[in-house]
Amino acid sequence: MTQSLPAPSGVITLLTDFGLDDPFVGVMTGVILSGFPGARVIDLCHGIRPQAVAEAAFWLERSYAWFPPGSVHVVVVDPGVGSERRVLAAALGGQYFLVPDNGLLTPALLAQPDARVLAVEWKRLGLAPPSATFHGRDIFAPLAAALASGQRAWSELGTLATPLPSVLRPPEVSRGRARGEVVTIDRFGNLITNLDSACVERLSATHALIGERLIARHRTYADVGPGELLALVNSFGVLEIAQRDGSAERTLGAARGHAVELAAAAGVPVA
Amino acid sequence: MTQSLPAPSGVITLLTDFGLDDPFVGVMTGVILSGFPGARVIDLCHGIRPQAVAEAAFWLERSYAWFPPGSVHVVVVDPGVGSERRVLAAALGGQYFLVPDNGLLTPALLAQPDARVLAVEWKRLGLAPPSATFHGRDIFAPLAAALASGQRAWSELGTLATPLPSVLRPPEVSRGRARGEVVTIDRFGNLITNLDSACVERLSATHALIGERLIARHRTYADVGPGELLALVNSFGVLEIAQRDGSAERTLGAARGHAVELAAAAGVPVA
Amino acid sequence: MTQSLPAPSGVITLLTDFGLDDPFVGVMTGVILSGFPGARVIDLCHGIRPQAVAEAAFWLERSYAWFPPGSVHVVVVDPGVGSERRVLAAALGGQYFLVPDNGLLTPALLAQPDARVLAVEWKRLGLAPPSATFHGRDIFAPLAAALASGQRAWSELGTLATPLPSVLRPPEVSRGRARGEVVTIDRFGNLITNLDSACVERLSATHALIGERLIARHRTYADVGPGELLALVNSFGVLEIAQRDGSAERTLGAARGHAVELAAAAGVPVA
Repeated sequence: MTQSLPAPSGVITLLTDFGLDDPFVGVMTGVILSGFPGARVIDLCHGIRPQAVAEAAFWLERSYAWFPPGSVHVVVVDPGVGSERRVLAAALGGQYFLVPDNGLLTPALLAQPDARVLAVEWKRLGLAPPSATFHGRDIFAPLAAALASGQRAWSELGTLATPLPSVLRPPEVSRGRARGEVVTIDRFGNLITNLDSACVERLSATHALIGERLIARHRTYADVGPGELLALVNSFGVLEIAQRDGSAERTLGAARGHAVELAAAAGVPVA
Repeated sequence: MTQSLPAPSGVITLLTDFGLDDPFVGVMTGVILSGFPGARVIDLCHGIRPQAVAEAAFWLERSYAWFPPGSVHVVVVDPGVGSERRVLAAALGGQYFLVPDNGLLTPALLAQPDARVLAVEWKRLGLAPPSATFHGRDIFAPLAAALASGQRAWSELGTLATPLPSVLRPPEVSRGRARGEVVTIDRFGNLITNLDSACVERLSATHALIGERLIARHRTYADVGPGELLALVNSFGVLEIAQRDGSAERTLGAARGHAVELAAAAGVPVA
Repeated sequence: MTQSLPAPSGVITLLTDFGLDDPFVGVMTGVILSGFPGARVIDLCHGIRPQAVAEAAFWLERSYAWFPPGSVHVVVVDPGVGSERRVLAAALGGQYFLVPDNGLLTPALLAQPDARVLAVEWKRLGLAPPSATFHGRDIFAPLAAALASGQRAWSELGTLATPLPSVLRPPEVSRGRARGEVVTIDRFGNLITNLDSACVERLSATHALIGERLIARHRTYADVGPGELLALVNSFGVLEIAQRDGSAERTLGAARGHAVELAAAAGVPVA
């Protein structure tokens, strides 16, 4: 641990499956402000479907770098709350992460050159005894406040540990083909896959195949007419299937987990 | 009023039934920042069902203490807006509260040793004439800004008053039995009741009865197998009926207001 | 451009159709804080229906003035993202606005005496090359940070331009009649129209006509009995049709775009 740590930015992001219909996020924020009055608490997203660890892992990997260096990213999608599952504190990519040890840390995150992960020894960190069911409030929030305020250095939080394997499945790539899946679907009904831009480029993919449907790749929504389907590499660097001014989810009857293949149809140029 | 008042923390929480689909919360926040640029405005929750005063009262009572002392808690669940219903300013538990006088202040809140309640004389406090339908913006927000910034002391806001009775019904307790109800249901489908931990302990309750269903009490979700129902004292100190990795609401067909009884089955230990 | 510009307040509001189920708003906020750590980012509303430019225009016009002078109001309801549609930076009403050029700026906004609009020359402002699909993150957020922090003056952002015509239709007014429409419907099922208070007063309207239903105008919800329908001039200065303790939307089977007429029934007083 001789590598230097990023200075805390004071920013704490929250990524949960709590939704906003109940005061769980509000109460976590209260605990953070109680421990660190100067915290900038940002709701990264609370709309992860209940206990959808893979969806949270996807968005964490694709979102964290847009925040100031030294931010603390807290993820509470935690079906194992109250069990003996570990709490992890990672330092990587110039940022900090507090997550339950359930596969949230993806290969891309752990491949960062500065990546280090601790198992948090929260029982010896002076927290009030936690409830059995809301570690977001009782463990994650006070630790985030301590880390983001500089009251505690990351290296004091625990001992080096190997996280459980990522829940996020990579696409199957072989002999010029790649088969991935719909990881999440956004509010507009866009189907967001685990096929990243490197994979798309390597195969010179001009089309995406979902169900029986072959869909041509373009640069952006405005490249097709209203109501038309298209595939594109989206702003988070992965293949997305969309419908201009419509919902690809509804039109295709698609759902999370549906298979999506890349295809390179000869003579069909990428716009 | 010789008792000392908490120093304002600068934190203002908002608890409403406005939802987030419309800009009502955003506009209230704009008014607060216009009056107090340094305010820390926290959305405690805006998902209270429309005009569900009891649900708001429950969450207010169970959430406020997680915020820094001297925070201002604003509740706008206010079916009587525009009528002659009073606006109350309470100081209790080391915190401030601005609420319509419709039963939001519960017995547990008013039992705090420092509890004092004023009827706000907002007509003499120099506010712009309020609209008839959005007192959250026109009365509550500017008063919260004034109170949280220290521009006005709580004691200047009005005169001592007795609030209307609480809308939150206590459970019926008699001869070793307690009968409460489902007060709210969270995003995970957990049924949250008005049976508090003191009541559960006093009866040594090992089970909860809902409808015809007797459900064993445990410490946390992970104590049962996936898909199993359980009862537990949750992180807000009340009995909750849950389903591991599922929705008790859907599985039991339960709704707010459904009766829940505590039971102590001989020989059935609490895990 | 000799007219003086408002000093930035440090407040940035976001009005989008992104919803809160995905991390798009969180990521935009991260970009803003990366460019301007002291920014106060306020979620004005993210529940605009997908691509409902008129709904966003309505709320922008009716909400912006509740924020401190010199705030930056960012609107990303942007079906044309990735096309050659322009980005506009307006200074008006003592506030700043960053919007796609798709009719979001209404006649009432542009009628402000200090109104000036620039077409933003974002390609020469030193931004990282934007994605084709998320200009909220790649163009609007960094520009908002630069403008709100004072790193860039508004006048540096581009050259004077005429916005596209407003998408918000005015009501048809002729010979003592006014015919407008339902522009948006709030969480309570209140029908909010484009008939403003000036129009209501000019016609001395005592009733509103929707479908076959003639509904009497009152001052506030509490002026009628539970379950009764009423019309009123709401807190945003426009005619609203509501049902006390109920949903006018459900009761009337109404939807956005439905026609609403003002009527002055002789002998029927406005309460």
